[in-house]
This record gives sequence, C-alpha cells and structure tokens, in this order.
Amino acid sequence: MEKIVLNPIGVIYSPYKRVKDIPCQGYKANKTGEILVYKEYAEGLKDIDGFSHIIILYYFHKAKGYLLRAKPFLDDKPKGIFAIRGPHRPNHIGLSVVKLIERKGNVLKVGDIDVLDGTPLLDIKPYVSKFDVRENIKNGWLEGKL
Amino acid sequence: MEKIVLNPIGVIYSPYKRVKDIPCQGYKANKTGEILVYKEYAEGLKDIDGFSHIIILYYFHKAKGYLLRAKPFLDDKPKGIFAIRGPHRPNHIGLSVVKLIERKGNVLKVGDIDVLDGTPLLDIKPYVSKFDVRENIKNGWLEGKL
Repeated sequence: MEKIVLNPIGVIYSPYKRVKDIPCQGYKANKTGEILVYKEYAEGLKDIDGFSHIIILYYFHKAKGYLLRAKPFLDDKPKGIFAIRGPHRPNHIGLSVVKLIERKGNVLKVGDIDVLDGTPLLDIKPYVSKFDVRENIKNGWLEGKL
Repeated sequence: MEKIVLNPIGVIYSPYKRVKDIPCQGYKANKTGEILVYKEYAEGLKDIDGFSHIIILYYFHKAKGYLLRAKPFLDDKPKGIFAIRGPHRPNHIGLSVVKLIERKGNVLKVGDIDVLDGTPLLDIKPYVSKFDVRENIKNGWLEGKL
C-alpha cells in the first residue's frame, strides 16, 4: 500500500526542554504540561472534559532513522524495539497516558507528562477503563524494574 | 513542520471482514487475531514474549477524510472526535490493547481483537502496568454505558 501521510494537530508543551531531561516514568515525576490543539481542530475537543485521563499520540520529532534493538531507560542490554517504548521505532509514534486536569478552549492542562517540549501532537483519545485498563499484567523484562 | 510519512510494518488479521462486524468492545467479543510483522522488522519483536498485553497502533485504512464530531457506537448524539475512538479522526490512527497469547516467529497470536481484517499495522508497544494502568478513572460521556 502507499505511504501514509499525517499532519500534526497541535503541539505539546512540557518542562522537559532536552531529551535527557525526560523521566522514564511520567507518573512519578508528577509534572504538568499543556497540549495546544490547533484552532482548526479545536471543535473535536467537545465532550472530552468528563474524562479523567486521555491518551496522547505524538511524533518523536528528534528521532532519526530507526533501530530494531535499542537500549531502554531501565536496562543496560538492548531490547527488541517493540518491547520498549523508546523513540527509535520504525514509525516514530509516541504514546502516553496523561491526567486531564483542565480544558481552556483549545488548550488542555495535563498531569504526568513525559514528553519533550515542543513535540508535535498527532491524536488525542479518551482513556476508557473498559478498553484500556487490564488486570493480571505481566510486564516482561520490565517486571521488578519499575 | 513538514508532513509526517509512515510505512506499515505489518498486517492485522481478524475475524472481522466488514466494518459493521467489529464489536465496540473487543474484550467482550473475546475473539483472537493474528498480527503479521513484515520480516524486515521481525527482529524488533525480541523480548516481547514476556508481556501479557501489547498496545497496537494501526491505520484506519477504510476511513476517508475526517469529522470533528461523529456519532460513536454507544450514543446517538455526535461527540467531539477526540472524545471517541472512531476512525474518522484528523490522523487515521487506531489503538487497541490486546492480549499477547503466543509468538511464532514474526506472527503474534492475540486475544480481544477489535480491528478490521487486513488493517495495516503501524506500531507495537508493550503494555506496562505502571505506564498504562490508571486508577480512579472517569469515563466522561461513556460512564454507565459500558
């Protein structure tokens, strides 16, 4: 099939100005950020206010090329790229679950942010307990490291 | 910034041959599917076996254009597109959490699938309890409908 072309729908602002500042676990750092949704897409934010958490998808804009194995934050040995969350993936899409603190027009204030400042936003989805919360999780190579 | 170009890394096979066959809640339908990762990316699956669940990102290849409000499965009234999980989003990226049942080389057998058969795969990420499981969830307009 042909290539897939995406357009950013906004920008993510965070306290993390450099890649090395980003915590490996946003929920521990407990920092807030802002998600600016471009005005042309702002109407799509209707009805989002009642959700306590959202999933954000974004573009790892600093990543160049990709690796099939890469060293994660939490281990010294390289892991398969689909078994880690790092940026050097075949498609440079990042995913975070963040707290939705407040919406002011086309800007969302969010908690637990772990994204580089200035990151292009690709999508926002509601975090839904029945879709996204699983029980009896096995965390693979991460077990015991978190 | 310039447009973002993605390349599918595989294909998702499921029992859902038509859009209208897809359940709104994969975890209830309890169907299995297969994720084929193209051989050139297969090495990236190393270390994924220990995870009980994975997050798959895929391309809603049947969606044409986008809407800022659309009617979800579970309500008669249109909602903001970022408050629902439907396909007619500005960027046609879908997300599902599925059970990882078994890996055989470059094919993953998965449970709880809710994706159209033949859907292009964009990414696989490990589902990690500390990153992806949240408590005290408010499900917005979906509350009480699931």
